[in-house]
Amino acid sequence: MIIVLKPGATNADVDHIIERVKSLGFETMVSRGVQRTIIGVIGEEERLRELPLAAIPGVEQVLPVLKPYKRASRELHEADTVVEVKGTRFGGGNFGIIAGPCAVESEEMTFAIAQRVSRAGAGILRGGAYKPRTSPYSFQGLKEEGLKILRAAADKLGMGVCTEVMDTRDVTLVAKYADIVQIGARNMQNYNLLSEVGLLEKPVMLKRGLSATVKELLMSAEYILRQGNERVILCERGIRSFEDSTRNTLDLSAVPNVHLNSHLPIIVDPSHATGRRDFIESMSIAAMAAGADGIMVEVHLEPEMALSDGAQSIEPDAFEALVSRLKELAPHLGKKTS
Amino acid sequence: MIIVLKPGATNADVDHIIERVKSLGFETMVSRGVQRTIIGVIGEEERLRELPLAAIPGVEQVLPVLKPYKRASRELHEADTVVEVKGTRFGGGNFGIIAGPCAVESEEMTFAIAQRVSRAGAGILRGGAYKPRTSPYSFQGLKEEGLKILRAAADKLGMGVCTEVMDTRDVTLVAKYADIVQIGARNMQNYNLLSEVGLLEKPVMLKRGLSATVKELLMSAEYILRQGNERVILCERGIRSFEDSTRNTLDLSAVPNVHLNSHLPIIVDPSHATGRRDFIESMSIAAMAAGADGIMVEVHLEPEMALSDGAQSIEPDAFEALVSRLKELAPHLGKKTS
Amino acid sequence: MIIVLKPGATNADVDHIIERVKSLGFETMVSRGVQRTIIGVIGEEERLRELPLAAIPGVEQVLPVLKPYKRASRELHEADTVVEVKGTRFGGGNFGIIAGPCAVESEEMTFAIAQRVSRAGAGILRGGAYKPRTSPYSFQGLKEEGLKILRAAADKLGMGVCTEVMDTRDVTLVAKYADIVQIGARNMQNYNLLSEVGLLEKPVMLKRGLSATVKELLMSAEYILRQGNERVILCERGIRSFEDSTRNTLDLSAVPNVHLNSHLPIIVDPSHATGRRDFIESMSIAAMAAGADGIMVEVHLEPEMALSDGAQSIEPDAFEALVSRLKELAPHLGKKTS
Amino acid sequence: MIIVLKPGATNADVDHIIERVKSLGFETMVSRGVQRTIIGVIGEEERLRELPLAAIPGVEQVLPVLKPYKRASRELHEADTVVEVKGTRFGGGNFGIIAGPCAVESEEMTFAIAQRVSRAGAGILRGGAYKPRTSPYSFQGLKEEGLKILRAAADKLGMGVCTEVMDTRDVTLVAKYADIVQIGARNMQNYNLLSEVGLLEKPVMLKRGLSATVKELLMSAEYILRQGNERVILCERGIRSFEDSTRNTLDLSAVPNVHLNSHLPIIVDPSHATGRRDFIESMSIAAMAAGADGIMVEVHLEPEMALSDGAQSIEPDAFEALVSRLKELAPHLGKKTS
Repeated sequence: MIIVLKPGATNADVDHIIERVKSLGFETMVSRGVQRTIIGVIGEEERLRELPLAAIPGVEQVLPVLKPYKRASRELHEADTVVEVKGTRFGGGNFGIIAGPCAVESEEMTFAIAQRVSRAGAGILRGGAYKPRTSPYSFQGLKEEGLKILRAAADKLGMGVCTEVMDTRDVTLVAKYADIVQIGARNMQNYNLLSEVGLLEKPVMLKRGLSATVKELLMSAEYILRQGNERVILCERGIRSFEDSTRNTLDLSAVPNVHLNSHLPIIVDPSHATGRRDFIESMSIAAMAAGADGIMVEVHLEPEMALSDGAQSIEPDAFEALVSRLKELAPHLGKKTS
Repeated sequence: MIIVLKPGATNADVDHIIERVKSLGFETMVSRGVQRTIIGVIGEEERLRELPLAAIPGVEQVLPVLKPYKRASRELHEADTVVEVKGTRFGGGNFGIIAGPCAVESEEMTFAIAQRVSRAGAGILRGGAYKPRTSPYSFQGLKEEGLKILRAAADKLGMGVCTEVMDTRDVTLVAKYADIVQIGARNMQNYNLLSEVGLLEKPVMLKRGLSATVKELLMSAEYILRQGNERVILCERGIRSFEDSTRNTLDLSAVPNVHLNSHLPIIVDPSHATGRRDFIESMSIAAMAAGADGIMVEVHLEPEMALSDGAQSIEPDAFEALVSRLKELAPHLGKKTS
Repeated sequence: MIIVLKPGATNADVDHIIERVKSLGFETMVSRGVQRTIIGVIGEEERLRELPLAAIPGVEQVLPVLKPYKRASRELHEADTVVEVKGTRFGGGNFGIIAGPCAVESEEMTFAIAQRVSRAGAGILRGGAYKPRTSPYSFQGLKEEGLKILRAAADKLGMGVCTEVMDTRDVTLVAKYADIVQIGARNMQNYNLLSEVGLLEKPVMLKRGLSATVKELLMSAEYILRQGNERVILCERGIRSFEDSTRNTLDLSAVPNVHLNSHLPIIVDPSHATGRRDFIESMSIAAMAAGADGIMVEVHLEPEMALSDGAQSIEPDAFEALVSRLKELAPHLGKKTS
Repeated sequence: MIIVLKPGATNADVDHIIERVKSLGFETMVSRGVQRTIIGVIGEEERLRELPLAAIPGVEQVLPVLKPYKRASRELHEADTVVEVKGTRFGGGNFGIIAGPCAVESEEMTFAIAQRVSRAGAGILRGGAYKPRTSPYSFQGLKEEGLKILRAAADKLGMGVCTEVMDTRDVTLVAKYADIVQIGARNMQNYNLLSEVGLLEKPVMLKRGLSATVKELLMSAEYILRQGNERVILCERGIRSFEDSTRNTLDLSAVPNVHLNSHLPIIVDPSHATGRRDFIESMSIAAMAAGADGIMVEVHLEPEMALSDGAQSIEPDAFEALVSRLKELAPHLGKKTS
């Protein structure tokens, strides 16, 4: 941690800061330049972060030096974490494919979509039983009934289930049916929910918040990891920007960014990132090219009849074509599709 | 709802769309221009929104016409909603003042701050007992112990208590001690939590999410209102932008924006909006000038010792000076401070 | 400048960096912590900034310590700069009012508006003769003809003229007619244009770019100041964010931010910031309350007939009411209106 | 164009709007719904856009229907535009490679880099002779001397030259030496400059502005195209967002977005988009996978000695490895590298 003092900081200010910092058990190192005095603070930065050093008179800025996450960091865990679910692997060169409807609408529809995406090559079935909807008047999901349908469809086809939990009270129930418990973008900083899924013995998919930096995404993963659950799959699903022709702005640089700083796998959700079915194919291939560890795609038999997010769902035929292109490209891009 | 067709849309496309829309019980009105065909859809727009019309072949864009919120809208409720808590009023020309520490750290400190802000003119005591912190290694709050301290301090001084709830499981407990239950920015789209506080017989303060539009803020309020709780106070607390010299970017135009579209009161939190104690005074006065229905300010006896957010807290003397300026300005700005 | 090394940086890396920095005439100070080695570089930071230190192997991040602007900085120029134009003052407690049509459309209309805004209390007449329009098919301005009209109208009423220049080739011509030469938001980083107006003996109004930080705004001012022109008025006119109910997002915290870091005056343009005539009054008053040194408002006799930006223009009556409110409030907000 | 009226709009309001619109030569079509009245306006939307319809009393919102660009639109020009420069092609399945130093620093260095990037497979040499720098104290380029060096280096190796022009006064001079005249991100809305390069008989590379939407990028291209110059190459180079670990946020969805709406080629500049040399390889490959028509990469012999942007430049060896990966992948991604 480095403390930069204001130009007019007095000796008394400097002494006060040093005293304050030392009283907390840290060492200091002062460097007086012509224009600024700088104080280096040495010690456990994690504890230092807690100190409101910027509130001390005479302080202009406080510059942290270390990364605020530990268990999620590649510094302490060099090898890639590989998460395996029912034979589908994410990370360490493995590219996992998750597909299914936005929301579970009915048993018949879910089985039909599951069959198509399974045949195309997806190993994990996605589908929302609890749906976070901007409007309280929108379809909110079938709840446990939806979980049962998902489980049955996946079991029949030997697939895994990935589905979202939105409420701490539902964690046990959702985990009973899911193979991967998903934390949605709107809940990325719902810390109680993160802590709760950190206690599960199931992989967690953590989606990046609409206005979260990659660093904050890793901090949220840290909440899960410190509870003991190390099987976290991150998911880039677009961030909010001023561009209004796509639903969100897909930040593909998050992929090498996460790989540089963390051992956790990161997949891409081109459906939510763009909100446009006509961009899903190109963004899925770009995701694999960028080094992503998988994708999650919304597929619907009749997007125009979907109860949720039809505009960003593709049809089974398009999904089949996409997966076959990805499988052909995988060896050239250093990826294995299970 | 207006459907704009792609340039090359065929008659068959048009017929398919009309048929699809009519089968759902809506009326259509077709207008064929030289360059585009447009289909107006007449009926309850709320239900129309659910339809993935953009997924129908031939559709270029779908333009909604009505606002997606109802109970929060001024159209259905012309008069300003005034929320009153222990004699402090928000809305309808009343300017309420909420102040206190970011987090409840100890009984002694809380009582001392409460006394100072009460004497200065704040009617509501704020303080976090459950703290949403980016890092799992940061101070997370005193929980129920903190709630008890807040309640006792407020009761001693005849103040109301405003404090945050983060988990559906804690709603009953927090409501037992609080006069205003706060939903933090990170939980603005935690819909289960919104529905839960919508069942309370207590006012709710709903903070705008870091990347939420004013429309989405009103949609989130709608989740609370539809449960029967109409005492919602909105709070502008800064949105995320590229500007990095302030913690967030205070969007003061949200104040006239909410007043135009909704009957709910909206207050401003300059502490979180700027993250800088040196901007709090000017932004508080600007908030009143913009027509805000109150402010919420973080005050700490010794900001440099605060366990949370010290850099954005002001000292009691500065707070006292601020409130006395606001009281002097209020009549000139058409506001009453209780 | 502080260089933070990567965790695995070797002694050879450290030596290489020190050697590299010393060969350029700077001194270094090394501090080896348990987790990171840090190298402080002492010397003229301005020259240091030029060095691509981040490209040296072993370097994790480079943290600047000083502000990158000098002449615009309050550190070197403590007193407020006051810019005076035909009796209207900006800065140092003076609140100047600029008003007029978005574009000069005709002599008759310009004279009529000028008369109304002058009578209401505006000292400076604004109006575009060269208009930067997103579409090449939109009205592009009357050019020199427009400048002549502006000049004549202002002279008749004893007002100053503020008008935009977009091209280095037009600087001399525009300066012949204008009292304040305006650099628009889209040209905030048109460095040749900045250098050119820096040679004028006329005040310059520099508008903040749509995606420029306050620091970058001050860096652009620096281009003007270093040419010798110290009469620069900054203008906050909204930045681009995800919020789509206003044209831009007015960042009022830019006002105390500029005042803290610079001696230059800063005014607010609520017309472009919000794009909505119904928010202009509240945002103008909020601007004065935030400490702004003036406002610039678009006024049109018949906004619905305006050739440009009608939706964000107010009518003369509304402008008159606004100015009279501002004049009444000024003494309470520590401002003098000329 | 569709006009949505406010809930309380009177018959007189409706009549006034219709009269106003008709007096301008447009036809109207009124639809009275239960909650809103809607007026469709039929006619040349280009002219309609000019009307400040939103300023008419009773109007709630004005919804445009058509795209505001014409010559850049795929609607009027279905086939891909292919731009060819010295044997290097952009567009129509061709993937062109541009590389070179950020700035031309010296003849020796430029020749050395040119030789390396040419050998690796780049057909176009980039390099700045006029540099837009945030700080007036940074290296501003060698100007004409730099142009001569670039030309000589390119001629020796049979390459094309791509270099930036920043000032209308320099267009003729820059065009004398360049094969592709570049408009930088900061000048994307410098309309006079756009009009000037529209008169050249040379291809223009137009970079997306830091806060420009794809639609605005196409509007700026329209300024060039309408002057008669149809050889425009667009360039996605990252947009500004809140994410601060990369210099900008690469918006790869701009690639399919441009391809859907326009016939113009679009390339990607991963150097400026990320500002980080360690992300350049993955983002270049992702760009090709997304369908981009080429890339522009900064290469420097010794990035740590570069006078500009060293942190985002890669070394010749890394560039060679990148090009060889791209060439291997091209046939699998449906691209031809010249």
